[in-house]
Amino acid sequence: MLVTVPATSANLGPGFDTLGLAINLRNEIRIKPSKFLSISVKGEGSNNPKIKKNNMFLNIFNEHYKRLTGGRIDNFRFEFFNKIPISRGLGSSSAIIIAAIASAYVAAGESYNKRKILNSALKYEPHPDNITPAVMGGFNVACVHEGKVFSKKHRLPSFLKAVLVIPNKTISTHKSRNILPNTYHKSEVVYSLSRAAYMTALFMSESWELLRIAAKDKIHQDRRMAMMPELYRVQKIAMENGALMSTLSGSGSTFFNMCYEDDAKKIANKLKNAFSEFKILICDLDNYGLIAKS
Amino acid sequence: MLVTVPATSANLGPGFDTLGLAINLRNEIRIKPSKFLSISVKGEGSNNPKIKKNNMFLNIFNEHYKRLTGGRIDNFRFEFFNKIPISRGLGSSSAIIIAAIASAYVAAGESYNKRKILNSALKYEPHPDNITPAVMGGFNVACVHEGKVFSKKHRLPSFLKAVLVIPNKTISTHKSRNILPNTYHKSEVVYSLSRAAYMTALFMSESWELLRIAAKDKIHQDRRMAMMPELYRVQKIAMENGALMSTLSGSGSTFFNMCYEDDAKKIANKLKNAFSEFKILICDLDNYGLIAKS
Repeated sequence: MLVTVPATSANLGPGFDTLGLAINLRNEIRIKPSKFLSISVKGEGSNNPKIKKNNMFLNIFNEHYKRLTGGRIDNFRFEFFNKIPISRGLGSSSAIIIAAIASAYVAAGESYNKRKILNSALKYEPHPDNITPAVMGGFNVACVHEGKVFSKKHRLPSFLKAVLVIPNKTISTHKSRNILPNTYHKSEVVYSLSRAAYMTALFMSESWELLRIAAKDKIHQDRRMAMMPELYRVQKIAMENGALMSTLSGSGSTFFNMCYEDDAKKIANKLKNAFSEFKILICDLDNYGLIAKS
Repeated sequence: MLVTVPATSANLGPGFDTLGLAINLRNEIRIKPSKFLSISVKGEGSNNPKIKKNNMFLNIFNEHYKRLTGGRIDNFRFEFFNKIPISRGLGSSSAIIIAAIASAYVAAGESYNKRKILNSALKYEPHPDNITPAVMGGFNVACVHEGKVFSKKHRLPSFLKAVLVIPNKTISTHKSRNILPNTYHKSEVVYSLSRAAYMTALFMSESWELLRIAAKDKIHQDRRMAMMPELYRVQKIAMENGALMSTLSGSGSTFFNMCYEDDAKKIANKLKNAFSEFKILICDLDNYGLIAKS
């Protein structure tokens, strides 16, 4: 059995807790029936004892496996091949949650649908902006209504690339959430709400050039970037070298830059020169989301 | 010369100062060269001495006519045939502004483009949500960036109809703006921002049935409806009888209900029975926006 889930970049500037897209940088899990529970981790997190235990994955897997099998407990071997950097704002937790639920379905031999898995994931991650593209792939707009995710997907063309700037340090999601005020001025609300809606229209009508106008925010982005001011320079360099948009990925610390294929190398090289200590990756975007094969 | 501009319904629930659409209920102005300035008004506003003077129209017309002709002053006869109810949240002021600017272009014999007229209108009406559909027609998402309107239009199919509920009293735009707080809680922001973006995706993907989920708001709508509590019953009756969405039009007092053609009469009749003192109109939506012919 094989379950793979892509990285995701959420918020996309003005789309706080709402917009997100999938990046073809995947965590893979191979699952085999086994006499004993066994786990191996390769790639991201393999040198982190906390990650190696995979408690979050196992707890969610077990909860759903029991539910689906009417209480059976079976043992499996889980082999993780992780490419999504951990705690960098690329949806690594959401990927674990989605992978755990989907793994339970395939291990139990049950058919699943993506909408059901997405709604189940909301229990562990109440914000839909990472889990939705992680399941669905593509660009997604999502809102939560009565405990369910309502979302709309738009496929991303292959000539668009992500240039990810992954700093050598984290901004903790917790700290990054706590830095945000509880209230926002009406002008800040209108600024971001109008751009979130406009950005949605631009993705859906594939008007890429205008993303430069839409990808600005007054709710979360500047407040979070202030915690790692180098990011302002990342953004400046990316935009000056042809990026279509350059936004904090989730709550950081990664910066997500989207560009035409032809501009990707130039943007990546300029960023590498300026930030030798950061990891710079050119990635495809992803339109598949969760893939789970029995 | 003939200039016509449609009514518009702005906000559409969560899309505060951002979303709007055009309704085929038009103000028409016929313009002829004349020895003296002369004005006639038929239809809405014809019994209102303030409206009959048309000072706002004339001031804006003269400003642009002078600019376009290099300072010439000529006289015209303006015949207004007004169908847009005044001060009811259907974009009557925006229609006057757009009509005045467009009339100056045609009277001066100058070619115009819609984007230019829209940006000029922003000087007189700083919120883009009525002026954009008034110029462009259709459903529009708009934001303001460096003094210009950036907007995206989506055409509306003819099988959708508007059922307008026009109360016999106004909610003043001024009072309706002042009743809104200066700050909003983060949860209110996310609630409306996510639905504004989701609604945009639904209009653009023509997923009409899901508008029922998206057309909810926590920024302005309830606060304004509280000033005329009958509107809650208008909304309830419309939604119970098949409306796809039922939202306060602009800052009120009109309620905008959108539905499939087949449901329009039923919704209108139920509302007529419940609110004999209100005007109920079934209208087509509009995809043309401003029309100006020399």
